[in-house]
Order: sequence, then structure tokens, then C-alpha cells
Amino acid sequence: MLSRSLNKVVTSIKSSSIIRMSSATAAATSAPTANAANALKASKAPKKGKLQVSLKTPKGTKDWADSDMVIREAIFSTLSGLFKKHGGVTIDTPVFELREILAGKYGEDSKLIYNLEDQGGELCSLRYDLTVPFARYVAMNNIQSIKRYHIAKVYRRDQPAMTKGRMREFYQCDFDVAGTFESMVPDSECLSILVEGLTSLGIKDFKIKLNHRKILDGIFQIAGVKDEDVRKISSAVDKLDKSPWEAVKKEMTEEKGQSEETADKIGEYVKLNGSLKEIHAVLSADANITSNEKAKQGLDDIATLMKYTEAFDIDSFISFDLSLARGLDYYTGLIYEVVTSASAPPENASELKKKAKSAEDASEFVGVGSIAAGGRYDNLVNMFSEASGKKSTQIPCVGISFGVERIFSLIKQRINSSTTIKPTATQVFVMAFGGGKDWTGYLPERMKVTKQLWDAGIEAEYVYKAKANPRKQFDAAEKAGCHIAVILGKEEYLEGKLRVKRLGQEFADDDGELVSAADIVPIVQEKLSQIHEDGLNEVTRLIKGL
Amino acid sequence: MLSRSLNKVVTSIKSSSIIRMSSATAAATSAPTANAANALKASKAPKKGKLQVSLKTPKGTKDWADSDMVIREAIFSTLSGLFKKHGGVTIDTPVFELREILAGKYGEDSKLIYNLEDQGGELCSLRYDLTVPFARYVAMNNIQSIKRYHIAKVYRRDQPAMTKGRMREFYQCDFDVAGTFESMVPDSECLSILVEGLTSLGIKDFKIKLNHRKILDGIFQIAGVKDEDVRKISSAVDKLDKSPWEAVKKEMTEEKGQSEETADKIGEYVKLNGSLKEIHAVLSADANITSNEKAKQGLDDIATLMKYTEAFDIDSFISFDLSLARGLDYYTGLIYEVVTSASAPPENASELKKKAKSAEDASEFVGVGSIAAGGRYDNLVNMFSEASGKKSTQIPCVGISFGVERIFSLIKQRINSSTTIKPTATQVFVMAFGGGKDWTGYLPERMKVTKQLWDAGIEAEYVYKAKANPRKQFDAAEKAGCHIAVILGKEEYLEGKLRVKRLGQEFADDDGELVSAADIVPIVQEKLSQIHEDGLNEVTRLIKGL
Repeated sequence: MLSRSLNKVVTSIKSSSIIRMSSATAAATSAPTANAANALKASKAPKKGKLQVSLKTPKGTKDWADSDMVIREAIFSTLSGLFKKHGGVTIDTPVFELREILAGKYGEDSKLIYNLEDQGGELCSLRYDLTVPFARYVAMNNIQSIKRYHIAKVYRRDQPAMTKGRMREFYQCDFDVAGTFESMVPDSECLSILVEGLTSLGIKDFKIKLNHRKILDGIFQIAGVKDEDVRKISSAVDKLDKSPWEAVKKEMTEEKGQSEETADKIGEYVKLNGSLKEIHAVLSADANITSNEKAKQGLDDIATLMKYTEAFDIDSFISFDLSLARGLDYYTGLIYEVVTSASAPPENASELKKKAKSAEDASEFVGVGSIAAGGRYDNLVNMFSEASGKKSTQIPCVGISFGVERIFSLIKQRINSSTTIKPTATQVFVMAFGGGKDWTGYLPERMKVTKQLWDAGIEAEYVYKAKANPRKQFDAAEKAGCHIAVILGKEEYLEGKLRVKRLGQEFADDDGELVSAADIVPIVQEKLSQIHEDGLNEVTRLIKGL
Repeated sequence: MLSRSLNKVVTSIKSSSIIRMSSATAAATSAPTANAANALKASKAPKKGKLQVSLKTPKGTKDWADSDMVIREAIFSTLSGLFKKHGGVTIDTPVFELREILAGKYGEDSKLIYNLEDQGGELCSLRYDLTVPFARYVAMNNIQSIKRYHIAKVYRRDQPAMTKGRMREFYQCDFDVAGTFESMVPDSECLSILVEGLTSLGIKDFKIKLNHRKILDGIFQIAGVKDEDVRKISSAVDKLDKSPWEAVKKEMTEEKGQSEETADKIGEYVKLNGSLKEIHAVLSADANITSNEKAKQGLDDIATLMKYTEAFDIDSFISFDLSLARGLDYYTGLIYEVVTSASAPPENASELKKKAKSAEDASEFVGVGSIAAGGRYDNLVNMFSEASGKKSTQIPCVGISFGVERIFSLIKQRINSSTTIKPTATQVFVMAFGGGKDWTGYLPERMKVTKQLWDAGIEAEYVYKAKANPRKQFDAAEKAGCHIAVILGKEEYLEGKLRVKRLGQEFADDDGELVSAADIVPIVQEKLSQIHEDGLNEVTRLIKGL
């Protein structure tokens, strides 16, 4: 009867499956995610055959497990500790928002938003970042000031480059400060958090590219760009990290209708980069800049910022780079993004792109991109307040976002053959040794002892088998990376005794210590505290780059 | 220029907004989520007026913040610690799956699945639970055995009852064991985890209702239910927690075509409940049961289970209840769910339901429902293996799921006026006191000192203001719940001294201690370790129900 109902379910899986494939295709889809591209193609060319489901995750997404998961959790815990250290509180917003909340915030990237199907009720979309939901939250709850952090997944229907950490579902770790404060103070704290965060993740060779939207806007005015052309010229400038100036200039003049002179004038400025001090000095000596209202405002901000980055001792990480534009609509002041040597695409990227067999994954011909980014957005909260009919109140905001998957891909490169990362937390393995005709295997007895350890907060396991030979139990203990075995000897246990033994190669010849079963918890606790005295574990070493 | 581009964005928000509302309606929508129902209604009756967005989260979802967030994070940390204690590793699967993966797994509840819009590419749906993605993961990676835990959001388009923790987006905290093991061993460990988890969350008055699908199937056979009717009769039995036997009997006979005798026979059995021992004894003495192959298999499992629940000392929490059926298709063995006194709907539920003004939220007339649940599903992994064209291999599974929002709603009830939960982790507030014409406010200096504390891992804040009077700084420190103030006195700081002062009512008259600026880090560390010696903080007390 039961099996009938199961058959029904299996049939229903099969009949509801949208994709028809031949058995040959199915074999291909059972390979790991890397083959997703092939699977997708195959699914679009249905062949005659058995109805089947493809065992894969959707394009641009993946399962996280084993030591990868341990490393990623360690990154989260490092960053959330950092955010808390700076007085951050955390919030959690829904993974989807009303569609209208996301509309008009992301410029050309709006096409990358995932929509939920209209199944009746409200129209919703998956969030594209954590910034817009944060601004919606601040406006909705009339919050005047908050420092909040948020670690959560966001969604973009972009071309994935999985091994470079560019995915369709990925985590952002955001810290934002909302509220009216002394100019550049929360901004410089955000920059300090960038430095502290990356340094504590063992990333040292990074550079914070920084610019100011007002300076950029001033430059465009000076160069003679019309107001209505600013956004499209800004998005041309934004390509300077990937394209040479000549290509960008061509885009400005041939595609975007600017004169040769305008383009050249922009070119003079956007080629500038150096320390805050250097570029500030250059711009301060430029009468065009100092006489342009917007550019002057931006330049004054930079002067203020310099006092604070010096107090935080983070100057050396910052490169004031006038070519940085950033695509998003909502930025109004400082903008910044963090790059490392892995951020840039390979030198022969365009060749590799041509050679790449499939465009489903771009890992072969792209770089990791920026690993963190942020900026000031002073009007976003008020847009929501006004658009919802609330009283207009400006709540200025500034924030940063760490790209965890990209940082993860850098940390992964540090792993060498000697790094062993244990995915379980298990400390103690409870075993039973015995034999003979009347030997039961002490399964309920092992459970009882294990339960005592659990109740004391100690991570403990035992094998799920009535009778297991010592070898199998030691193997299981080793696989779990346990430090200690608690052994129920057939005779010893009857006498109220347990054997406590250190595990590991160097203790192979050590029979351990026979102790009173009544004292097992304090004895194990004492041994564990000795073992853990030596400090850092492998994950911490890896994360910190030690 | 900038403001023009912003105007463009605002216009784009407005023109892209789907919902048109009058200003009056907009005022209503600016109220918190409780008014979501009204807002939705309003949005369905467009009126003439300004284009607007409604500042709300989608129906059945909410933002989490402040002390609620602290409490929920403490629940997660308690449960993940518990899962690790039992040797669990964690995995993370995408929030959406290929639609075909979810098809045919949830019986009548399949209609509650959220679909993603078809924007080209694969058809996907938001996950409905964590169990099906887990089984997909196990099958896809040919995993033979794993203990995994997963704490993540799931999605169901159900009627929400927000204050009872019944939401459309909610967390599940799952622990599952996959692999072929000694009968009932992982099952009893899952039950032990239920007891350990709820107890450590301060929930003591709960009952684990437990049944066995094979016994239930045997009973249906004994009563004369035809094989093809089993699922629908099972789903009638499943309603016994909400409806009286008479109503269920009526459904069986009048709607579902069973004879009076069959229904009465089922009734005899499903009314049985008591301890494992009691009901096991009753069923063992029943020749109908012992001679039915399926029922006998189930009964043997129960006998084995009893040995282990005794070893784990959890018998007293279990009620063997033959009326428990559970709706999901995939269970094959033990099934269980945890209820408390808050689980049941109010006694006058149907009256309240009639009175309730809106059916958008059911909080007024429903109970919290079960707060945790689970069971054995031995065929789900193999369904995926077979349907994907892989070799058929049975990987038996058993698991449990904690309903965090429901547990949260129980813990919230413990909060009384004296409970203060601090949403930030900030320990130290860095202040500057001074005055006079030449007083700068020591902002960069405060930053420098704060940075020293951050670098030593100490949670520290300062006010984001060039000059702030002492009152404002103390207020900010108090708001952040700080224990210590580090004060830069105008003269003292110039002499290389800092003042360290305990905060709080009882230290109001204490001027603190003047120390050398060079020693500030160890001195603050020492003071903090003294302060935290007294142990448990308010959140821990609240979570543990102390």
C-alpha cells in the first residue's frame, strides 16, 4: 500500500517534470554544476525518451558544503564581529520586496532583477542588493539614525563566473550608517571597516579606489557635458577599469555625441590617480575645479576626509582615482571599491573569451572584480518617504558591502595540501570494546554516556551500530577529527570505569587512562581545555592568512 | 546636474510603480505591517491621484530588528551549537530550485509553492522546505551517509498569522541523518535533539506526538480501506488535532466513500494515545495488529525505539498518538511533531474567525501550531536518483525541523518589563570633555583612541560630532548600553592621560580613574573581564527561561 503511494509520487515527479531528456543526456546532467551549461543546452533540445528530472542547482547558484562552508562561516563570523565592534545592530529583511520598491534604483542593471511569478496578490521581486531594502526599512519606520549590518543573499540574473565568485545567488555583508552627522565621519569609519575587515581576512595587497560623485559631476560640467548626458557619460567612464581610454573616448564621441574637446577634457581628469593628498593638491591648484560649485564641495569633503583617514591610519590603502564612477543611480557623494591583483581580467581576456566553448560561465576570461564597495547615498531614504506620501525628510546614508564569494575565492587560493579543515565540531568519540558470545555491543550504554557529554555541552558522537569493531570506531573518530575517545570496555564498564584516550598518530601506543564513570564529564572537560590551549585552529589560521 | 538625475530616478520610481493610491490611502500604508491587509485592499481599488509606492513588506513577511533580532539570533546559535554537538555539518542550498525538483513532494500543499517568473532559462521555484533540497543534494553528490544541519528560510503562500509565528517567509532549523544504520538509532537521536533543543530554549511543557506510518497503514488495511484510498483517509485523520472525531468520521464516510464499519474501526485505533510503553502493550495484545505485516514491522520499530529513548532518558516527553498522520507525501516510518499548550487554537476559534474583520491575517483565531516536527523518509533520495537516470540506491533518511518563528513567539511571551535586551554589542564609549574658545572637540583624537580599542577587538563607539557636550555623550553611551567610558579631558589628554570610568546609575558619583594613554587597551580589557565575570546576560537568561 505504501509502495503504491510512493509509486504515485515518483510518477508525479516524472509527469510534472518540464524537461524531457534521453538517457544519454541524463547521464551528463548528473555531473557536478560545472556541467550545468551542457545540461541546460540539452534541456532546450528535447529528445524522445524517458521523462526525467535533472539533478542540479539552477544556473549561477551552487550548494555549499564541507570545508567550503566552514571557511565561509568563518568569514561571516569575522565580519559580523567586526560590524558589532563598530556598534552595528543587525536587521533581516524579506528575500523578496514589492516590485515597485526596487524599480528605478539600479540603472541599466534593472534588467538583472528576478521577478516572482504573478500567482495572485502582490507583484514581488527578489532583492538585488541589501541597500534598497535598508533604505525602505529606514523610511518605513521613520528611523532618524541607525548603524546596521546585514549579512544575506542577493540575486542577479547576470552571466555567472562561478570559480571567480561571480554568481547569480550570492551573499553581501553590508554595514551602513543612516542619519545626519558631522561631514565625512561615518564615511571614514566605513573606510576603516573596509581596511579592518580585509586585513583580518588575511587580504593585504588591496587598494581602495575612491572618488566623489560631486567632483565627477563638476568635471563633466567643466568639460561641457550637458546635464541630460551626464549619466551616460558617467557609465562610459565607469568602463575605464576594463577598457583603454581610447575605447571609452570613442564611445563618448561616436556613440554618445560628445565633442572631441569635451572627451579630451574629461580624459585629462579621469587619468588622475594617486594618494588623497596628491590628487587633492592637484585639484586644489586647478582653477576650473575650485571655481565649480559642485567640484569644490566634493574637494572640501576630501580635505575633511583626509584628517580622519589619518586618525584611523588608513591613508596608505586609499587611491583617489578620478576614473571611478560606479554604475548605481543612488550614490551622491563618496564612492569607493576595493580591488586586488585578482580583480582584473586575465591579460588575454578577449582571446580567451573567443576560445571559451560556452558563454554560460565566464570564469575563464574574467577577473574576480571588486571584492568590496560602497558609497554615500543621501537621497534614497527620502525618495521612499516622498513616494509613499510621507513627510519629506532627508536621512543621509553611507555604507559598504563585502562580496563574500569573491573574498572566499581569494582565501581558497591559500589552501595548500597541508591545510586540513574539519567540517564537524566533534571532540569526543564514545566507543565500546568487547567480544565473545554474550557481547551486546553496549549501544544503549554508549548512548547514555554520550548523552552525559551532550548535557555538559561537549560535542560527542558514537557509531550508529549495535556491535562495531574497534577499527571501525577509530576510523569514524578519525574521520570526525576527534581529539578524545571515551571507551566502554566490556568488563571495565561493569565495574563503573571508563577509559579516556587521546586520539592521533602520536598517541597510537597510549592506552589511555581508566577513570570512574561518575567523573567522566569533568575529566573530559579538563582534557579538552588542555588540548585547546594551544590556540588557533586551522580555519582561523587560513582566514587570517597566517 | 546631480539633482536632475535624482529627479529622473524619483520619476522613474513613480512611473514604474504598479499601485496607484490617493494620499489618504498612502497615509494608511505608512503604518507598520499590521496594516498590510488594509494597504493591500486599498491597492486593489485604485483611485485617482498621485502615483505612489507602498512602504511595506510583502504579505506574510516582515522585517526583523532590534531585540527581536537579538533573540532570534540567540535561538539560531543555541540550535546550531546543539546540531554541532551531535556531529552535524552544515550545508547551504540555493533559495530556489528547479521547479521539477519540488514537484510531487508536498501533496495538497504544492499549491503553496512560490514560482519565479519565466524570464528565459530554467523554470524555478522558491524552496518549500529544507528536506527536499537536502535529498536532492544527497542524490546529486552520491553521498552515502551524512549528518547535516541547515538553518535557512523557506517559503509558503499560506494564510499568515503573524503574531503566532505563522508566516510566508520563515526559518527552519533542520537536522537530518542520511545513511543506512542500525534501526531506530538515528531516529532516537533526532528525538533526543528535539528534547535537548526545546529544553535549552526554556520550553518545558511540550509533548512529542509520535506515530509510525507503517502502523497507520496497517490500521487502514485492517479497517478495510482500499490501497488507493489510503492517502485521502490519512489526510482526514490528520485533521483530528483540529476537528472532533465525529467531523472526521463524517468526512470519511460521506465525502471519502468509506463504510460506517471501516470508519468506526479506524476510530477505535486513532483514539489511542499514551506512553510508548502503554500503547505498545495495547497494540502487542491486538491480534489484528500483530498479524498485519506492515503494522507488525512498525510495532517492532517501536519496541527497539523504547530501548534507546530510555538510554537518552526522553520517554517522558513522548506521547504515542495513533491520530498523528502528517500531510507530507515523503514520510515512510516514524513521524512526530511537538506541541505545547499554545499550539492549539483558542477554544472559541470559529466564533473569533467569524468576528475577525479581515482574513488577511489569522492570528486572532489560530494557535501557534506545532513548534517542531519530523520523521523518517527512506525513499526520497532514491526517487531523485532514479528520476535523474542514476543507479537506484536507497539512502534512508530521518530528520527534525524546528519552527523558529513559532518558538520565538513563545519566548517573546516571557519578556516582562524588567527585561532589557541590548541590541548592540558596544562595551566602551570614547568621549571628550573640554570647553573654551580653543576647544576643538578632539574628534580625530577620539577616533585614534577608538581605533586602538577596535584593533584590540573591543567594541567601541564615539559620537559622530566635532564637539559634543558631556550630557549628549553620556546619553549616547547609555543608549548603546556601554559599561565603560574612556574620556579624553582637554588638559589630561595633552599630558598623555585618559580617564576610564564605569557607567551606570551606581557609578554616577564616581569620577573614574586617570590612566596613562599608552596602557589604555590592557586597562579596559581588565575592567571588561571583571564586568563580564558575573556571567549570563539578559538574552541568555531569556532564551533559557531563567
